[in-house]
Amino acid sequence: MSFIIRHTELANFAEQVFRHIGCSEADARTAASVLLAADLRGIDSHGVARLSGYVRLWQAGRVNTSPNMHITAETPSTASLDADSALGLVSAPHAMKLAIEKAKNCGSGWVAVSNSNHFGIAAFHAMMALEHGMIGFALTNASPLVTPANGAERMLGTNPICWAFPAGEEHPLILDMATSAASNGKLEIAERKNKSIPEGWLVDKNGQPSHDPAELKNGGMLLTLGSDLDHGSYKGYGLSASVDILSGVLSGANYGPWVPPFVSFLPVLPDLPGKGIGHFVGAMRVDGFRPLDEFKAHTDHWIRRFKETRPANPDAPVIIPGEPEQQMQELRLKEGIPLNDKVVDDLKQLGLNLNISFPS
Amino acid sequence: MSFIIRHTELANFAEQVFRHIGCSEADARTAASVLLAADLRGIDSHGVARLSGYVRLWQAGRVNTSPNMHITAETPSTASLDADSALGLVSAPHAMKLAIEKAKNCGSGWVAVSNSNHFGIAAFHAMMALEHGMIGFALTNASPLVTPANGAERMLGTNPICWAFPAGEEHPLILDMATSAASNGKLEIAERKNKSIPEGWLVDKNGQPSHDPAELKNGGMLLTLGSDLDHGSYKGYGLSASVDILSGVLSGANYGPWVPPFVSFLPVLPDLPGKGIGHFVGAMRVDGFRPLDEFKAHTDHWIRRFKETRPANPDAPVIIPGEPEQQMQELRLKEGIPLNDKVVDDLKQLGLNLNISFPS
Repeated sequence: MSFIIRHTELANFAEQVFRHIGCSEADARTAASVLLAADLRGIDSHGVARLSGYVRLWQAGRVNTSPNMHITAETPSTASLDADSALGLVSAPHAMKLAIEKAKNCGSGWVAVSNSNHFGIAAFHAMMALEHGMIGFALTNASPLVTPANGAERMLGTNPICWAFPAGEEHPLILDMATSAASNGKLEIAERKNKSIPEGWLVDKNGQPSHDPAELKNGGMLLTLGSDLDHGSYKGYGLSASVDILSGVLSGANYGPWVPPFVSFLPVLPDLPGKGIGHFVGAMRVDGFRPLDEFKAHTDHWIRRFKETRPANPDAPVIIPGEPEQQMQELRLKEGIPLNDKVVDDLKQLGLNLNISFPS
Repeated sequence: MSFIIRHTELANFAEQVFRHIGCSEADARTAASVLLAADLRGIDSHGVARLSGYVRLWQAGRVNTSPNMHITAETPSTASLDADSALGLVSAPHAMKLAIEKAKNCGSGWVAVSNSNHFGIAAFHAMMALEHGMIGFALTNASPLVTPANGAERMLGTNPICWAFPAGEEHPLILDMATSAASNGKLEIAERKNKSIPEGWLVDKNGQPSHDPAELKNGGMLLTLGSDLDHGSYKGYGLSASVDILSGVLSGANYGPWVPPFVSFLPVLPDLPGKGIGHFVGAMRVDGFRPLDEFKAHTDHWIRRFKETRPANPDAPVIIPGEPEQQMQELRLKEGIPLNDKVVDDLKQLGLNLNISFPS
């Protein structure tokens, strides 16, 4: 990782790419911001590393960059949004804005999105609530890579759950987690480094335990959080199922094994039960429960007390959900974003193809 | 387990006990129903096995059986309820009713409860939403028994998460899970049978791995779902933290290590940051997102497809969240509820003390 780039330059490049494939100025800026949020927070698998993947989805006709997103059902605190095949990077922030408007009016807002595509990191969307004194929530289903407990079939995505809680003097508390035991990104890192992986992350295509990260590309499956029955894999499965029902079944999107793959070269299954992939986002006004300043003070108190937890190992203190990502963001805002060679090559090629110069 | 009792008889006994300690007729019936729901669903640790524990909490002056529960903040879709030290078995159904009313009016309802006590199984409360064509949600914090990832200190409860989704011809899909790797109940069973437990459930009071379930009573700590860092214990910790913030910090209840212990003989910590223990419940009208019959049909479709998942082992099919509890309930409604000798002795003694005859 010798290549380091300022986040503003990378954002500018991504924005031009999204403009090139037909996004409006505002949508291109939003989509680039979502990708850059991932790169800044250290979730490298969900940042510009995926930019050319989004372009290929557009080339395959699976992304509509001038969508007519429209509400298909609504109450004062809920709505469903048909994203008209928009980039999830665009539809999820749109849905979150709607949720925030609803929360302003009646305390909370919850929006299920169908007919969408991969939405980047969940944290970007949930965190939109914070500046409004609200708690944010974001879920999405995703291409099937994960087997349910007891299973040997790809039935679920890594289906993340994100909660964002405002704090006062401390940084907001952000939980953004895949419901699989290990994320795809972790496997990619192990594969790049030629390292074996711990038992409990992956099974091969026959459902047998595997230590080889490459097995995922060979028909293998990720395991749910908990890894095995003794350690609660049925809980990770249940969480993932809940994410799938809220994102897919409730919205009118696809679910389970029918969720369309992110990669454009894999076919979409026949007899789809819904439209595109689905998200579920929400916002709750803190002052619908207690005064915001009180809540923030107690969240600070919570964070400080948990940081003081007696550690099992004195060199490894207890950390707060979202703390490592926050620290990474501070570092990368200052020092730039390191990109690995494969990603740099991919972005340079993308720039050549689209006649957009990649900063060097 | 030679003692088997009809659920109606057991409910009647529990109801008389709650009447004896001062509950209104309606509250006693509700509280007994919540306990019996646990016994019927096979969550034996949360049923009548705890009845005398609730009575001792009342004797210790920590439960108010004629509470003045009151709303302290409100919007059309949110509220906070001060439970005035009510039994959680009473306050949580009360809060859920309020959430359902709000959902009827504006699509969703979310109620945070402070100043409460242990609320039994989360599924009872979340499932109240089902008959209204709503999705139910229930969380609670609980006495600290769990260490955060990297920690060696009891900072969190087993903090459960429950989602209840209505289905059509299939049974509703119910996820009700502790955010610890293993529940307290599982440790109790291992201890009773003198069995060792798998690594990843428990650490001893020094934070060292332990296979002895008795270590929990010796200052040990449960681990969060994921068990170790490699397998995502920070995710289970993050989920538990979210439950604690929503149930405790948002409601004005206690949180983290300050959550009052269920057992009356343990002291409550000084300098409490809130009141009692906290819950968070919610209800969302399905038709605020898509027509209810459509949702039910797709939930059925989801359930049927997941039941057909290729199994890793042909003798152990993939099951649906809530399915084992549903089957247990069908069995126990027919054949009665088996109670272990310790629980029978405890209930008999309770009956003697309160002059209520225990059915034999």
